Amino acid sequence: MNITPAKKLSGKVTQVLQAKGKNFVSEPVTSLPLSFGGIAGDFHEGLTRKSGGREPWYKRGTKMRNERQLSILSEEELAEIASNMNLDTVDAGWIGANLVFEGIPNLSYLPARTLIMFGNGTTLRIDGYNAPCRLAGGSISKHIGDSAEDHTRTDTALKFTEAAHMKRGLVAWVECEGEIRVGDEFTARVWDQWIYDPA
Amino acid sequence: MNITPAKKLSGKVTQVLQAKGKNFVSEPVTSLPLSFGGIAGDFHEGLTRKSGGREPWYKRGTKMRNERQLSILSEEELAEIASNMNLDTVDAGWIGANLVFEGIPNLSYLPARTLIMFGNGTTLRIDGYNAPCRLAGGSISKHIGDSAEDHTRTDTALKFTEAAHMKRGLVAWVECEGEIRVGDEFTARVWDQWIYDPA
Repeated sequence: MNITPAKKLSGKVTQVLQAKGKNFVSEPVTSLPLSFGGIAGDFHEGLTRKSGGREPWYKRGTKMRNERQLSILSEEELAEIASNMNLDTVDAGWIGANLVFEGIPNLSYLPARTLIMFGNGTTLRIDGYNAPCRLAGGSISKHIGDSAEDHTRTDTALKFTEAAHMKRGLVAWVECEGEIRVGDEFTARVWDQWIYDPA
Repeated sequence: MNITPAKKLSGKVTQVLQAKGKNFVSEPVTSLPLSFGGIAGDFHEGLTRKSGGREPWYKRGTKMRNERQLSILSEEELAEIASNMNLDTVDAGWIGANLVFEGIPNLSYLPARTLIMFGNGTTLRIDGYNAPCRLAGGSISKHIGDSAEDHTRTDTALKFTEAAHMKRGLVAWVECEGEIRVGDEFTARVWDQWIYDPA
């Protein structure tokens, strides 16, 4: 197996958002205070969570450690998603982002275990790619004003899954507690990589 | 970027060990009771841990979430390490294993985020490769009876780092609580993979 050596990249936070309500839709805030349970008061806060449709191998509602505390998008990929959907813009909050980054090419391809390290000591650890789902597509459909009883079944919602393929960003958990604000710069540390080959 | 599709593998637990003392050396036990903090009573138990030499980017002793709750080795790689060191055997407990698996080729190359799922609902999530260190090499040196004041500086200890290159297994954390015993079978779920390329 060929090992691709570790690398470092630099990026910047352009948006900081929190899901304050009873679903994943998030709104801009001044800062994100982060504990080991994630974002204080956020819809996704918790050291553990209940399994859902993303984990078909568990009975729905199984208690599991919460590796999906934060959703991270990139400005560059968000613009591509909008363009692929023939929309002027897709608001990061519509699809539940907590952080939007700029400066990391192909953010969605950052591998699992990558560290996102901020100057103030706050560190996030990337769990991995966040595959697009119909709920997020439905939220876009609702926000752009599609008329439908069930927005997760509109053309917009269906289009999202394809438009956001490998552009829907990452999920991460808190490795070191702290705070993140708009304008913060960070270093992404990507570990050695290889493709697993059982042979 | 080329995406290598997800795959599933099957394996079996051949040894179950716990570090009951004040260091990482582990000894055989009947079963591992696992909570979200890891192995109850183990040297590495904790929802959080203090950073050490493996995290040179943090001040030593920084409080961080504990992604290294369990150490996993493979029988096949352990035999190769012993052979590379011209030893008859390297005991899994000398280097602090909690689990030894058989049947997963190139176990050490299993990528971060891989799920290790047991029939009783217990699941581990792989943080990633556990690079060999001089402390583990020193422990082997001590156990085979090298005469030295500082076993981490013996030829044996130095040889270990090279002999165990990409064979020293994985670290993991508990995704779903439960219990693991010798003879348990599991499925390893490897996610889609790619090599991150910023270009």
